[in-house]
Amino acid sequence: MTANSFRRQGILFVISAPSGTGKSTLCGNLRATPDFIYSVSCTTRPPRPGETNNVDYHFLTVEEFQQKIKAGEMLEHAKVHLNYYGTLLAPVKKALEEGTDVLLDIDVQGAESIRGCKDPLIRSSLVDVFIMPPTLEELERRLRKRGTESEEQIQMRLARGKEEMQNWRLYRYTILSGSMEEDLIKFRAIMRAERYLSSRLTLV
Amino acid sequence: MTANSFRRQGILFVISAPSGTGKSTLCGNLRATPDFIYSVSCTTRPPRPGETNNVDYHFLTVEEFQQKIKAGEMLEHAKVHLNYYGTLLAPVKKALEEGTDVLLDIDVQGAESIRGCKDPLIRSSLVDVFIMPPTLEELERRLRKRGTESEEQIQMRLARGKEEMQNWRLYRYTILSGSMEEDLIKFRAIMRAERYLSSRLTLV
Repeated sequence: MTANSFRRQGILFVISAPSGTGKSTLCGNLRATPDFIYSVSCTTRPPRPGETNNVDYHFLTVEEFQQKIKAGEMLEHAKVHLNYYGTLLAPVKKALEEGTDVLLDIDVQGAESIRGCKDPLIRSSLVDVFIMPPTLEELERRLRKRGTESEEQIQMRLARGKEEMQNWRLYRYTILSGSMEEDLIKFRAIMRAERYLSSRLTLV
Repeated sequence: MTANSFRRQGILFVISAPSGTGKSTLCGNLRATPDFIYSVSCTTRPPRPGETNNVDYHFLTVEEFQQKIKAGEMLEHAKVHLNYYGTLLAPVKKALEEGTDVLLDIDVQGAESIRGCKDPLIRSSLVDVFIMPPTLEELERRLRKRGTESEEQIQMRLARGKEEMQNWRLYRYTILSGSMEEDLIKFRAIMRAERYLSSRLTLV
């Protein structure tokens, strides 16, 4: 019996989208599946109602965050809307080495710094996906619907979203956002397809 | 209203698999969907029971086939099991230019000659997928189950299948064949994902 069977390396899926595109809900749906490890980001922003420490984010003080940057423990980090956001390197590399896929939910700056990462394992496993809002008006509507932010915060996020949308071409894939179900189906297609890339496979 | 909308070029999906892997059934299922134009191949082999001219194949005489090669009308052609197989260039290019995807069901030799094609439209739109049988034994079982060929023909196809399986790495994607439903789900994931590649998209 000569059974064909493939082994493959882990894939680092990076997903970016302007605030309000529904990225958090999308990632929440994705993490409910056993398809990959969802990397929990670190942030210095205060938790929103309903958010849990070490589940939604690792909530850190500014001092703690800066200490981790100094110690070289961050895969990427960025300062957005006056707060730090970042990803710890160690758990991501460990998962990829074990052949497990990782999902990172990060902004345009963070994705750019991962694309510039020199680590060969990170470089070869990166698959970045941009979720494009259907219109600016729809982005604004979704931001207001959330109802958790001040008018000033909404305007800041909108301006930033407009800027981020200019960067879609830097990502390997771009999904035009529709309903949550549509976005999920599209992202899962990318996830599956990347696993069948011959360049990732070894016949064992 | 600033609606984001993308235009994209057509994709040339090429699917190869050893005889008996279930490629014809898979392609039959795929062509029942409106996702792409299924390119009907030309062949000089006689029709099998149930096959219809200009639907399953364009059945040509050896003289007709050789005339089309001479006239430069073939995108690719190959001689397999004493018969010619090939694909007409004109309908494929027309579809791709119109932004329509094309599905080509061709063997390893044919795929290799498309990869070597100098036409820039063909080159930039090619996505090739290899369907890998789970085991050689299963391939033989599936070939015998078909019950349309002599023992000599089965042995010829098996030897050829074994040889073709060496070529999976040349294809962009490799799918390990499971049930027909599984293969279909996997192929459709590739089909969708390739449509979200940023490099194929133009914001309009």
